[in-house]
Amino acid sequence: MAKKEVYLDNAATTPVRKEVLREMIDYFNLYYGNPSSFHNKGKEALDAIQSARKKIAEILNCKQNEIIFCSGGTESVNFAIKGVAFANKEKGNHIITTKIEHHAVLNTCEFLERDGFNVTYLDVNKNGILDIEKLKKAITYKTILISVMYANNEIGTIQPIREIAEVAKQHEIFFHSDACQAAEYLDLNVNNLGVDLMTLNGSKIYGPKGIGILFKKENIKVEPLIHGGGQEFGLRSGTENVPYIVGFAKALELAQKEREAESKRLTELRDYFIEELLKIPGTFLNGHSNKRLPNNINISFSDVEGESIVLYLNEKGIYVSTGSACNSKNLSVSHVLKAIGIPYEIAHGSIRISLGRETTKRDINYTIRQIRKTIEKLREISPLKFAKLK
Amino acid sequence: MAKKEVYLDNAATTPVRKEVLREMIDYFNLYYGNPSSFHNKGKEALDAIQSARKKIAEILNCKQNEIIFCSGGTESVNFAIKGVAFANKEKGNHIITTKIEHHAVLNTCEFLERDGFNVTYLDVNKNGILDIEKLKKAITYKTILISVMYANNEIGTIQPIREIAEVAKQHEIFFHSDACQAAEYLDLNVNNLGVDLMTLNGSKIYGPKGIGILFKKENIKVEPLIHGGGQEFGLRSGTENVPYIVGFAKALELAQKEREAESKRLTELRDYFIEELLKIPGTFLNGHSNKRLPNNINISFSDVEGESIVLYLNEKGIYVSTGSACNSKNLSVSHVLKAIGIPYEIAHGSIRISLGRETTKRDINYTIRQIRKTIEKLREISPLKFAKLK
Repeated sequence: MAKKEVYLDNAATTPVRKEVLREMIDYFNLYYGNPSSFHNKGKEALDAIQSARKKIAEILNCKQNEIIFCSGGTESVNFAIKGVAFANKEKGNHIITTKIEHHAVLNTCEFLERDGFNVTYLDVNKNGILDIEKLKKAITYKTILISVMYANNEIGTIQPIREIAEVAKQHEIFFHSDACQAAEYLDLNVNNLGVDLMTLNGSKIYGPKGIGILFKKENIKVEPLIHGGGQEFGLRSGTENVPYIVGFAKALELAQKEREAESKRLTELRDYFIEELLKIPGTFLNGHSNKRLPNNINISFSDVEGESIVLYLNEKGIYVSTGSACNSKNLSVSHVLKAIGIPYEIAHGSIRISLGRETTKRDINYTIRQIRKTIEKLREISPLKFAKLK
Repeated sequence: MAKKEVYLDNAATTPVRKEVLREMIDYFNLYYGNPSSFHNKGKEALDAIQSARKKIAEILNCKQNEIIFCSGGTESVNFAIKGVAFANKEKGNHIITTKIEHHAVLNTCEFLERDGFNVTYLDVNKNGILDIEKLKKAITYKTILISVMYANNEIGTIQPIREIAEVAKQHEIFFHSDACQAAEYLDLNVNNLGVDLMTLNGSKIYGPKGIGILFKKENIKVEPLIHGGGQEFGLRSGTENVPYIVGFAKALELAQKEREAESKRLTELRDYFIEELLKIPGTFLNGHSNKRLPNNINISFSDVEGESIVLYLNEKGIYVSTGSACNSKNLSVSHVLKAIGIPYEIAHGSIRISLGRETTKRDINYTIRQIRKTIEKLREISPLKFAKLK
């Protein structure tokens, strides 16, 4: 019998759905042309891209030329922020973001700071929510861009995107939102949201890793990040990754179709899961109780190390993460947990559990039992505990 | 019966080989973890990347940490050139390249010129070969980078890479070579070649579109093009495209194994093809007679338009290109043909035929017959011919 596996790290990455793989597969060696080629083999590929773009534009409620395909969420974020910054230098050199953004945003901003830009990193409250008043106060006449994530990858907190967009609009500042984690569960209608630029990623919505889009309003001037043959309306060069573009569109289409039902199902499972976990003594939920992604749980256990929990659970075939997987080789404490004021020792004992399409109540019950056992065991041998006894 | 198809546009892109697809397929929804995750699902993915990197490093004869995976040739070129430029500003602001580079190189250089860098675009001779003496003369004390392609994408001309490397070394200038077109047929041993940075691309070696590598010597300082979670030794952020990385390594391994035999086979077919084509009156071969890629033919026909030839052949199921497919939506004359001194009217009547693994002598004979008929027909109705008669 195969070992039981419970994958609860869907915020790190999702498997590619069978329907998505099926849609992609013929584009590897049947419709393999270069979309820039004039002949039929090129046209097949070009048609596939255009049909994918049309599907996505309908879901986002935008124009087709406002969808720019690129190699993933990180590239899209780099493109959005550097692209606006470099093309709008004459307007100003100030960017506003938050302390809890993904490293794609933070490290891009840090690069721009070395290049002469000024960046304000806003605090968030103890639940991880941005204070609109603080945002308003940070704006100067030099501010050209606000970049705030739709939902956080570690604690799942959902930001007041519409309100931020309203403020940005009033001050004629461009607003970019990293919606990678939100894409599977939240409204993506860019008119409702009011965003000027938005980043989506295939690898978090059961599409492939290595594909993403930047939504960018038609009239916004950006400098390309990748120069060359002029693909994607001259904004992102390089032969298009046709299979993944087709796959991304399919994944987003399925996400859109199942959004409501799946969000409801996971919210219930999540709340049950949290309730059961909080019964373990010395346990704290990080992030907001309900302004959070339906699939996100971030929880701290006193007197244990998050890494140890992850490794113990791994032995039981349960896959969870400490903080952000995108940065998990770095053992320093999560910048997100630090920003919401979680004390160092508690932050170190935190894990992120991210549910997904395949998660069942049975999986959750199994996981809860294993977590309970793990925590008991770890606390028995915890040096932190001994340190306290002294 | 299915319509006969003869794909002769392998320089634009190649189909993914069955062996490559087979190697990749399980990484979509079986070994789908994020390589940055601590658990077994992450480790499976990380192991796959490391094993791919090891394979490639063996073929290139370099260290494993000198291979940086990215989203394709265009990104790799942007990364190499901007990366060196931004990280070595204090040393100098001068870059040398040639007039016949791919637009990925040319447009990246043009971007850097707008940012305060100076770029020398060297002439090539009528066969498309760079003159080493001209290169030496172009070097100044401010030169930080030379970027010369290994083999040209339009006319297949192979550059004297070792000699260029020697000059670069003598002057302590970094040398980058775009080897996208060369990768299938020429030696890739970076020690033999003497390159400091080298770009390879999956989509020209029967691997997938949307994956490439930058080889970069360990000691060379570069600024990342894409900032974020710190993947690829902190040099290229973003969740790794595991299936494509595995596929790229497999494609390169197969290319390496078959390099000698396939180069020999295609060189013979190419020369036969050229010989037959030159029997058509008013026909000129562009590029060098033997310092050219085994699969490349670039030929001009007087009194006809290249686009018309491509479209006529398309109707017969034969797929060729005019100039560079990567730029084929742009109807201006090819910058490469212009650089080697082909007159405007002749350049407009040129097509590129690029052979591949599946090309047989029978395909070639069929294509020759169809080209002969096409040229006759087009010349009959040619306004260029009528213009001359006046």
